[in-house]
Amino acid sequence: IVSVQLMATQAVITNDQKQTATQLMQTAIKSDLGMEIVTSLTTEIGPRLGGSEAEERARDWGVKLGESLGFDNARIEEFTMPFWDRGHLHISLSSPYQQELYGTALGGAAPTKEKINADVVYFRDIHALTEVKDNSLTGKIVFVDGDKMVKSQTGAGYGQANQRRRIGWQHAQRSGASALVVRSVGSDSHRFPHSGMMSKDGENWADIPVIAISNPDADHLRRLHNLGKPLAISLHSESKWKGEVSSGNVILDLIGSEKPEEIVLIGGHLDSWDLGTGAVDDGAGVAITTAAAALIAKLPKRPKRTIRVVMFGAEEVGLLGAFAYAKQHEANLHNHVLATESDFGAQTIWQLVSNVNPQATLLVDEIAKILSPLGIVRGGSDVVGGGPDIIPMAAKGVPTIRLNQNGRDYFDLHHTPDDTLDKIDPDELAQNIAAYAASIYLIADSDVDLKP
Amino acid sequence: IVSVQLMATQAVITNDQKQTATQLMQTAIKSDLGMEIVTSLTTEIGPRLGGSEAEERARDWGVKLGESLGFDNARIEEFTMPFWDRGHLHISLSSPYQQELYGTALGGAAPTKEKINADVVYFRDIHALTEVKDNSLTGKIVFVDGDKMVKSQTGAGYGQANQRRRIGWQHAQRSGASALVVRSVGSDSHRFPHSGMMSKDGENWADIPVIAISNPDADHLRRLHNLGKPLAISLHSESKWKGEVSSGNVILDLIGSEKPEEIVLIGGHLDSWDLGTGAVDDGAGVAITTAAAALIAKLPKRPKRTIRVVMFGAEEVGLLGAFAYAKQHEANLHNHVLATESDFGAQTIWQLVSNVNPQATLLVDEIAKILSPLGIVRGGSDVVGGGPDIIPMAAKGVPTIRLNQNGRDYFDLHHTPDDTLDKIDPDELAQNIAAYAASIYLIADSDVDLKP
Ligand SMILES: [Zn+2]
Ligand SMILES: [Zn+2]
Ligand SMILES: [Zn+2]
Ligand SMILES: [Zn+2]
Repeated sequence: IVSVQLMATQAVITNDQKQTATQLMQTAIKSDLGMEIVTSLTTEIGPRLGGSEAEERARDWGVKLGESLGFDNARIEEFTMPFWDRGHLHISLSSPYQQELYGTALGGAAPTKEKINADVVYFRDIHALTEVKDNSLTGKIVFVDGDKMVKSQTGAGYGQANQRRRIGWQHAQRSGASALVVRSVGSDSHRFPHSGMMSKDGENWADIPVIAISNPDADHLRRLHNLGKPLAISLHSESKWKGEVSSGNVILDLIGSEKPEEIVLIGGHLDSWDLGTGAVDDGAGVAITTAAAALIAKLPKRPKRTIRVVMFGAEEVGLLGAFAYAKQHEANLHNHVLATESDFGAQTIWQLVSNVNPQATLLVDEIAKILSPLGIVRGGSDVVGGGPDIIPMAAKGVPTIRLNQNGRDYFDLHHTPDDTLDKIDPDELAQNIAAYAASIYLIADSDVDLKP
Repeated sequence: IVSVQLMATQAVITNDQKQTATQLMQTAIKSDLGMEIVTSLTTEIGPRLGGSEAEERARDWGVKLGESLGFDNARIEEFTMPFWDRGHLHISLSSPYQQELYGTALGGAAPTKEKINADVVYFRDIHALTEVKDNSLTGKIVFVDGDKMVKSQTGAGYGQANQRRRIGWQHAQRSGASALVVRSVGSDSHRFPHSGMMSKDGENWADIPVIAISNPDADHLRRLHNLGKPLAISLHSESKWKGEVSSGNVILDLIGSEKPEEIVLIGGHLDSWDLGTGAVDDGAGVAITTAAAALIAKLPKRPKRTIRVVMFGAEEVGLLGAFAYAKQHEANLHNHVLATESDFGAQTIWQLVSNVNPQATLLVDEIAKILSPLGIVRGGSDVVGGGPDIIPMAAKGVPTIRLNQNGRDYFDLHHTPDDTLDKIDPDELAQNIAAYAASIYLIADSDVDLKP
């Protein structure tokens, strides 16, 4: 067994490759390049809502950055999209007394026609709200509470918690309510609302305003409700759809030395929610993947395959850049030998998972051993999905890996005003870059086919 | 030496007293009363700016609470005060691009006459600003940066950091600037501005708007400034003085069984800044001192001296309740045998300091030994000041002690929207109540005179 294992090892990664990967990791750990990139993006561009003028500035920034780092063919691939603008919001408790609430409109929400001041009907969670009768709450404001999102390394609590954000409006609107207020989907206890997109109902977005309030504000409403106090809320929101605009993906290539047509795709998303400056979501992912590829670009010899960094546009508002990429490159997706995205913050990577064929699984196993000194373990070899923007490609058969980050604190900051540069630990960011540089180099320089 | 020490001990605290104090501590640690009080205040009253209608509701709440807990003569002592109202603020970066800033008006600031949009002149710290020339910055907005407040157990960084908040406006106004923006005085890195009062210049308050922005926002402006980007800020603020209003102190007594005329005064302040709900500043202090006295009230026999709980009004806006109390009780201050206030959050007490006469210092030494199981050490015996609201009384000769709390995290929350109930740890609050109950009981039941 030992000798078979050894032979397999020799077959998939050469000693030279291993040595180069290890040197890349050592260089990455000492490099400031990742912090420089995310500092530049968050400082010089700031918040960059999908479809906004700021996102356009970010694309120009991305192309200039790519050129300065030695990428080939730095370019923008445009697409069009509907633009949702947050506008100004004022929300306060008006009964049992006047108090400001810390809220924000959810993505896709309609504006108030005029200022609303209405009694609140309390629902303990989304399950209770789904049982509401049609037209039973005309003119009321629905508040759907829920439990604070569970913290975990994997972010496992997110899917459950964000039901109230995604589909709550459909039930509130059915009930005839004037507006919906929801407990934010976040694991923190700070006075920040968490933004995020709602789900469409077929082709329809909400006709009512939908506002997320912070966990402490939701706690406050719950306590008042439990005391039997009559709750009322005053609300004015300008959020609305504003028609078609341009967005785009930024593409940076390192053309491969032997098989330039074969593409190993990595990336993050360039847009951010507009409350913070999009440092951990997803300036970090852009910085990690761009810096990793830039370190590979400095090697004496290019890897065999092309490494492509994609800075996806308009991810937050519905993976619009990802769908545009998959469509624009549809004819060439069979040449995408692997795709993976960094979009889960800036804390350390702890696990490598994959969804590739059995022979390539052996390659990923060997890569995991090389990453081991970074504190990374091998995870499942049948884990679908290489990140949100990879979904449309993976659905069309592109193989994926994922370098799973510790997401325990990610949902403290996610989509809040508090997602700013100071939240990134440079050492943790560098560990990410080391892992990407080594693993992407090894895949790009390999002859192994990864298709399942 | 041992026998002298023992004799001294026997002289100042009897075994019965020691046993009662220890029982009080054990009861306090298990009691929910403190959490119930601060939960009720923050939930049922909410934010309560000095001089507001909400602060008036808080006084009625305080009287009802005192009556329900068995205090004697629960009453309000009114005073009048000028009312400063925060009003609505909008502040954003307008160059090099549009971005919301998270700010709040500082106490005493003037409104913008109309919306301002002006170039920013950057000062690295308050020392740089104090050297500005008169009328040299007409029409500009001054931004005074500084270092993030140093975190410490004692809160030692506060005095240094809050110079920019206190006197910055005097130099900005002198320079002819249209407005002053300052880095918040806070030790956190969250996107919350810290409010707080400015200092008067003689009898004059600022004629210009003065806005504190969060630490991450200030970091952002600093980085843009260091990149040489031209900064401009757009600003509209409604904060202003609105004339004389009523406020008051709530007084709750436990009349002493042998020397009712001798008063041991404890308390906190009932008002809060209006951004949060005043949980750690100073709902906690009100809860700690009221609960401690209420536990003493349940003893089979009242202590010899009167214990008085004062919920001071309008502390944040200039110790107005404290000055009113000292004036209204001037003729009787010689009967105030001790005064102390809890106003430094809700974390555990770690030290007992005092400013009493040498014989009474021995009493405080013995009290510290009894508190030792709570994790409290004896500190200085010549430390002036029993808390902010005690200053006017202490200046007129009233002896003081102080149960020093761990303030390491206090200035993360201090005067921000994030000062809410969820920030209080019930076990830490209970430790405070235990320490107050035991020490105040021992002083109230003592015959030792404390006057320096
Ligand atoms: Zn993201
Ligand atoms: Zn996101
Ligand atoms: Zn205070
Ligand atoms: Zn305060």
